Amino acid sequence: MNKLVIIRHGESEWNQKNLFTGWVDVELSSNGITEAHNAGKALLKAGFDFDVCFTSYLKRAINTQQIILKEMDREWLPVFKSYKLNERHYGALQGLNKAETAAKYGEEQVHIWRRSFDVRPPEMQEDNLYNARKQAQYRDIPQAEIPMCESLADTIARTVPYFEECIKPLIISGKRVMIAAHGNSLRSLIKYFEHIPDEEIVNVEIPTGKPLVYEFDSEFKTINKYYLE
Amino acid sequence: MNKLVIIRHGESEWNQKNLFTGWVDVELSSNGITEAHNAGKALLKAGFDFDVCFTSYLKRAINTQQIILKEMDREWLPVFKSYKLNERHYGALQGLNKAETAAKYGEEQVHIWRRSFDVRPPEMQEDNLYNARKQAQYRDIPQAEIPMCESLADTIARTVPYFEECIKPLIISGKRVMIAAHGNSLRSLIKYFEHIPDEEIVNVEIPTGKPLVYEFDSEFKTINKYYLE
Repeated sequence: MNKLVIIRHGESEWNQKNLFTGWVDVELSSNGITEAHNAGKALLKAGFDFDVCFTSYLKRAINTQQIILKEMDREWLPVFKSYKLNERHYGALQGLNKAETAAKYGEEQVHIWRRSFDVRPPEMQEDNLYNARKQAQYRDIPQAEIPMCESLADTIARTVPYFEECIKPLIISGKRVMIAAHGNSLRSLIKYFEHIPDEEIVNVEIPTGKPLVYEFDSEFKTINKYYLE
Repeated sequence: MNKLVIIRHGESEWNQKNLFTGWVDVELSSNGITEAHNAGKALLKAGFDFDVCFTSYLKRAINTQQIILKEMDREWLPVFKSYKLNERHYGALQGLNKAETAAKYGEEQVHIWRRSFDVRPPEMQEDNLYNARKQAQYRDIPQAEIPMCESLADTIARTVPYFEECIKPLIISGKRVMIAAHGNSLRSLIKYFEHIPDEEIVNVEIPTGKPLVYEFDSEFKTINKYYLE
């Protein structure tokens, strides 16, 4: 049996402010930092250990993982970072307040953007403050690969192939893997692990800072999942 | 011209207590944390940026680099960790107070252990609390590769081949590299960069937490070096 631990980053400063975040690289809130410490303690208490770690290019996930590794005295473990594990790109909505956006576009439209499987939010303009194509972080990524907005389906299309290519073979070979990522990049993986239909995955909620353990059989079929408290 | 930045970790808790540290995985002191923040600020102010980072398996170096990357808003950069960049292994002296060791073995003997090029300190016993062969950190390293004590010559023999194989090709290809490591693993590199004779390198002092910049020509000949303040 192979285990995998996935974890959504602790609460960020923008979760607190109720802003659409997406690829904007915001810090953990002090509550989020506490959540990350607690996650590390829970993993340690439950006897978990890891061989390899993966995370996104965004510091709220990177720092969550660093804090967990510190709690586990595992700072020395290899950590691979990829933008393929980034949060869903929220396009022109990034940086906007969710309540204001609802007032402007209507509750229903915002609900569609947030909860539909393949409807994209409005595209970001080139001169948007948060245009990832102009940020140092993505300077080595081909411009065409950097989205200007994404539906959940788009996020899945970058996250799952990365998982299949870079992470799954390690798990199958017996390596103990931890992934620290985001609500929608983890939804992508959960959909893949559990074959959840398109219309259901959009409503799956993943709490911040709670380690989620998957157990797979030798055919990589999910046989168990549970949250660690 | 290719640049490389190397940096000795900030002051550790055991630097403060005047203990032989070697491979013992101690924390940065609060002064060491401040040094790391200042190093990050100095690099940022001088306009430095990096593509790839290297560090040891020891948290005083790992954390120094993480703090620098945080100050530079570069948490997302790839970081490769290797025990090949660890501090010199101080054998049975690890954990002993330097003054007490001098009282026990004599000032001259301790001076020989600390300042000779190829004289090893006493070997650690198998049941030593700090025996790396029994630590999770080194579980994937062949036992025979894990030292029980090292002379500076031994440290050079693991550090320089690692540099030549894994780091030098990146620098030559134009990648901007930062290495956060230790007094003796950095002495090894400095000896290699500047062809410093055996009897001189033992007296080269490297301050904690100060970025040291090397500039190389296309033949990897050192053409300049300077500390950033």
